[in-house]
Amino acid sequence: MLNVAIVGASGYTGLELIRILYRHPEVAVTCLTSEQSAGKPISEVFPTLRERCDLLLENLEPVRVAEKADIIFTALPHKAAMEVVPTFLKLGKRVIDLSADYRLSDPAVYGAWYEPHLNPALLKKAVYGLPEVRRAKVRGAKLVANPGCYPTSIILGLAPLLKKGLIDPDSIIADSASGVSGAGRSAKVDSLYCEVNDGFKAYGVGGVHRHTPEIEQELSLLAGKELKITFTPHLVPMDRGILSTIYATPKKATTTEKLVTLYREFYDGEPFVRVLPQGSLPSTAFVRGSNFCDIAPLVDERTGRVVVFSAIDNLVKGASGQAVQNMNIVCGFPETMGLEGPGFFP
Amino acid sequence: MLNVAIVGASGYTGLELIRILYRHPEVAVTCLTSEQSAGKPISEVFPTLRERCDLLLENLEPVRVAEKADIIFTALPHKAAMEVVPTFLKLGKRVIDLSADYRLSDPAVYGAWYEPHLNPALLKKAVYGLPEVRRAKVRGAKLVANPGCYPTSIILGLAPLLKKGLIDPDSIIADSASGVSGAGRSAKVDSLYCEVNDGFKAYGVGGVHRHTPEIEQELSLLAGKELKITFTPHLVPMDRGILSTIYATPKKATTTEKLVTLYREFYDGEPFVRVLPQGSLPSTAFVRGSNFCDIAPLVDERTGRVVVFSAIDNLVKGASGQAVQNMNIVCGFPETMGLEGPGFFP
Amino acid sequence: MLNVAIVGASGYTGLELIRILYRHPEVAVTCLTSEQSAGKPISEVFPTLRERCDLLLENLEPVRVAEKADIIFTALPHKAAMEVVPTFLKLGKRVIDLSADYRLSDPAVYGAWYEPHLNPALLKKAVYGLPEVRRAKVRGAKLVANPGCYPTSIILGLAPLLKKGLIDPDSIIADSASGVSGAGRSAKVDSLYCEVNDGFKAYGVGGVHRHTPEIEQELSLLAGKELKITFTPHLVPMDRGILSTIYATPKKATTTEKLVTLYREFYDGEPFVRVLPQGSLPSTAFVRGSNFCDIAPLVDERTGRVVVFSAIDNLVKGASGQAVQNMNIVCGFPETMGLEGPGFFP
Amino acid sequence: MLNVAIVGASGYTGLELIRILYRHPEVAVTCLTSEQSAGKPISEVFPTLRERCDLLLENLEPVRVAEKADIIFTALPHKAAMEVVPTFLKLGKRVIDLSADYRLSDPAVYGAWYEPHLNPALLKKAVYGLPEVRRAKVRGAKLVANPGCYPTSIILGLAPLLKKGLIDPDSIIADSASGVSGAGRSAKVDSLYCEVNDGFKAYGVGGVHRHTPEIEQELSLLAGKELKITFTPHLVPMDRGILSTIYATPKKATTTEKLVTLYREFYDGEPFVRVLPQGSLPSTAFVRGSNFCDIAPLVDERTGRVVVFSAIDNLVKGASGQAVQNMNIVCGFPETMGLEGPGFFP
Repeated sequence: MLNVAIVGASGYTGLELIRILYRHPEVAVTCLTSEQSAGKPISEVFPTLRERCDLLLENLEPVRVAEKADIIFTALPHKAAMEVVPTFLKLGKRVIDLSADYRLSDPAVYGAWYEPHLNPALLKKAVYGLPEVRRAKVRGAKLVANPGCYPTSIILGLAPLLKKGLIDPDSIIADSASGVSGAGRSAKVDSLYCEVNDGFKAYGVGGVHRHTPEIEQELSLLAGKELKITFTPHLVPMDRGILSTIYATPKKATTTEKLVTLYREFYDGEPFVRVLPQGSLPSTAFVRGSNFCDIAPLVDERTGRVVVFSAIDNLVKGASGQAVQNMNIVCGFPETMGLEGPGFFP
Repeated sequence: MLNVAIVGASGYTGLELIRILYRHPEVAVTCLTSEQSAGKPISEVFPTLRERCDLLLENLEPVRVAEKADIIFTALPHKAAMEVVPTFLKLGKRVIDLSADYRLSDPAVYGAWYEPHLNPALLKKAVYGLPEVRRAKVRGAKLVANPGCYPTSIILGLAPLLKKGLIDPDSIIADSASGVSGAGRSAKVDSLYCEVNDGFKAYGVGGVHRHTPEIEQELSLLAGKELKITFTPHLVPMDRGILSTIYATPKKATTTEKLVTLYREFYDGEPFVRVLPQGSLPSTAFVRGSNFCDIAPLVDERTGRVVVFSAIDNLVKGASGQAVQNMNIVCGFPETMGLEGPGFFP
Repeated sequence: MLNVAIVGASGYTGLELIRILYRHPEVAVTCLTSEQSAGKPISEVFPTLRERCDLLLENLEPVRVAEKADIIFTALPHKAAMEVVPTFLKLGKRVIDLSADYRLSDPAVYGAWYEPHLNPALLKKAVYGLPEVRRAKVRGAKLVANPGCYPTSIILGLAPLLKKGLIDPDSIIADSASGVSGAGRSAKVDSLYCEVNDGFKAYGVGGVHRHTPEIEQELSLLAGKELKITFTPHLVPMDRGILSTIYATPKKATTTEKLVTLYREFYDGEPFVRVLPQGSLPSTAFVRGSNFCDIAPLVDERTGRVVVFSAIDNLVKGASGQAVQNMNIVCGFPETMGLEGPGFFP
Repeated sequence: MLNVAIVGASGYTGLELIRILYRHPEVAVTCLTSEQSAGKPISEVFPTLRERCDLLLENLEPVRVAEKADIIFTALPHKAAMEVVPTFLKLGKRVIDLSADYRLSDPAVYGAWYEPHLNPALLKKAVYGLPEVRRAKVRGAKLVANPGCYPTSIILGLAPLLKKGLIDPDSIIADSASGVSGAGRSAKVDSLYCEVNDGFKAYGVGGVHRHTPEIEQELSLLAGKELKITFTPHLVPMDRGILSTIYATPKKATTTEKLVTLYREFYDGEPFVRVLPQGSLPSTAFVRGSNFCDIAPLVDERTGRVVVFSAIDNLVKGASGQAVQNMNIVCGFPETMGLEGPGFFP
């Protein structure tokens, strides 16, 4: 039985970690921190947890946290994460970081999109935790940089095409849409019910969304060359889910049938990627609450373009579920442990 | 390992049974029926189940179903249930019936609210499966009549008061609100997204809703005398959940503090009833996906009235979760088996 | 052409006033104030207004506002309203106040529920602006206290019964449910999309909601005696709308048919009250965007209780629409001017 | 005062026509038809209309309809429209057809996407009613083919770029998302609340959606050459609204500033197109209930691609509002008559 701490537990990804780990037979959650709600039981912040997890939230004192846990999930905003992660590592703890702080391998890129990195040397040691692409490296990792939600959906959607060199790497457009939980649990007018409900809009467009360099870093590695994409996130009036609709130009004409076969082979044996049968399309509703990424590639025969649809639950495969998947790999547990259930519908 | 059949699997309660039983370590789902979708895999009807449950849906042939299962959940409309349940029983199977067909002990009452009963003798043998009120009888039952969703929320909300004789039994008003999944999965204009979204209304008012006699039967038993209630169901634009706000006149003046103590004692040890701390109120959001019933009683000190709030997930404690709870009791499994998880939020 | 100012224009009721007055042929909106967004055009705060109303928001300087307007709507929080209203009145302006500051005629009651009143003498001069009940007094008013949203739905729902002395005044229970816009546009975790969506709960229960004394004041006047009610507000995941389900005990047995006739007679000629035909029930969806109050009374024949359903759009008949109706009366315009349109569905 | 008939009035576009025309000072709605609900008042089908429009729905007998109306809106499914429109024309009536039946000028194209056309000669006489592009022709039209919802958003989004020859016509990708009212009011499992809520998905992808040829016909005319696009519609859990996110490759490098200037010039004087200031993005929430199309073009500087956002209310500018705009042009009324109001938010 491993002891687990969740640092930054009073946000939605913290709650989702608790929900998932509750079912995990090999770990016990022993420490939760929250700056805002320290002293309260987590079940007062999230009454859904009453009689399931009534741990008291603590202030974030890294040494005390490390004393209580073998493995630590950091579910903090960027910058806050890199202020404490080095301490955890020094104390011999393994860390799964859900923030953006260790996802970019180049400190200059991090600096350009965020701010100067506090511990740039760590960036080389961190492993980008997308198991379907980098499972072997995750295995031995001390520090796993858990991927962003949009990047997960887009990288999984494109990996087979880029790895096989089938599309023009400069032709990629990723048009994504996310549920509102992606904006977190802080009080903002833009996230109020009446502002979001019954509306649909884009935001962070034109190459300014901070997930852009992360997506490009990983797609470039897959393609074996530097590439840039056009990425357009949208906001959907729903709690959870990301659907990415990805467009690219194939190097030579292909068919939907061939693509489905390619994807099925590429993801053969992957426990959390479902390549849908030809003719089916993913919906965020059908991955809600599960760690699945549902993918459907197709060819628009009239224009020759390739279109790939990729759906995840942003809080599960896009955050906390993938973090548990990474923990399982790091700790040598079966990769699906705690993540076996089907989704939650309706 | 017990084999389980779900008759009428292509509705929302059927799906929820599959979702819950997937986690249950002592049973295997071996047979699913659906008149509309026979021949298709259930995962084509509910893609959320892909790679989790891909069983083929079958036509409902009772003998064949019975061959495949030790215990049978009937998730059929009323009347359809009583057409097949006797066969299952004759073949020695235990049945958890989620329809209304065996909930009313008096055939005349069933006849008045539905239609003439096809096997009235069975009504006496069926056990009304609300474990918090009738656990001992459920234990030996061959046929469990799984309670309706509104009745579950209202009976659990009132049981302590009626059992202790603290309220005037003729003063009860139950004002309830349900999510849309309670209307089932059949194509009706009234359940269309645009008809339901952004609206709130009552329906089935004035004593005509068919859950009325079921509620009154059980409350009368608790009170030790015949009583009638005013019951007003409402429809909320949400997928799941029932909140009942119940009003009654106490026989003598009391306080919120006393009521909370009473409820805590009454439900002491109950694994699925959470009596909230004074000052907290239940929300359907916090029971979503769990088998909990969250209850908060209080006294309106200005008028002396008692008000009780009672929240459940209509598909879980209001249907499939309670059905699994009943199965656990009937089969001698730990009562919480498969139902341990916290709820699903957000 | 009258000039109109809206003080506190950057909230939802401010926006709704602009939307309604845009169609009003006899007034022009000439001044908008907002502390938070002064200096910006209102259409930057609410882009729906672009090219329809691009007025700059100003700081609230009462004398300057009064210079620009003949009539002033104050859409401020309580207390903020009573800090400026006396100035407007002194400067000879008529005021429609949408806050709670002038709704309670007794300063002691105001003090008990809010805080000490700053200008208690004004309370006697203010007219409670529910035209269906007090049209004659509104006519000559200098200061109209525009009713609260819950009170509007409940008072209109009960007026015929109380006025005619048909129910026991101590038997009243008002169970109400409101859309989220009722909570205003300030950034609060409780009003975030993910906190509200797919959930239903009560709040402010047990006689603590500040609309309680307002409701009781008006119902007592109608009944001709002091009465107290049990009032339970709920929150519905929708933008707009209030439905009140009101229970009472009739003094002697009656029928739904008689009640419908009574209500039709009582509200005969009222332009904004629709008494539904027997068998129909109101939905907030069908009053959305309109100034209607839809009412259906009935008798629960099994218990003899009277149940009245009353639906309004909380931002229209529950706030800004009623404010315009009051303005029309005060100014001698046709009462329906600017409010003629049907509702907005779906 | 012109008399107006709405054929197919019991759907959402029929209702929206009534809502808009109610405010129109120069027309009176005198005849409504509905096959399903003939004999009932329209206000029984849509209670929002009570006391605003209580006309009885009639069976569709073309000669009788024509007797009652000067101008006829046909809000029927495709095929049903072309079965009656010739009769109306023969009887000297002007027709605004909201179906797809007269939008495609080439009968062969209609035949390929729908079925053989019943009156192909009429296709040449019909005018595609997108006023911003074809106002002059609409003026004298006897038969206006009112554009589809997706086409309206996409054509208006691209017209300036294509007309000026600034983009590669073969590079166009239109990624659109629609509210659920676009699916109409017929009872289908796919449109049930619980199937749609909290989910996001694509449908009709890969070039099979029937709006594709309509979009391509109009874009080709603007470009002066045949072009094909990739068009991907999505379904959003909301009542109303379409947002199109459109991608294209510019022929030579440009800037957002230049594009905004171009669009402002192109749409200068257009009463229903709002080109947003640089840095603002449209939301369907801000056009809801209005006839506006909000547009924001930009350049993704990292890839050089042009991205255009275009938002409409699918029931207004995407259907009934545009139909009234066309009627105004046809009849010589001010083009904005009845369509002046700002949108409906929240």
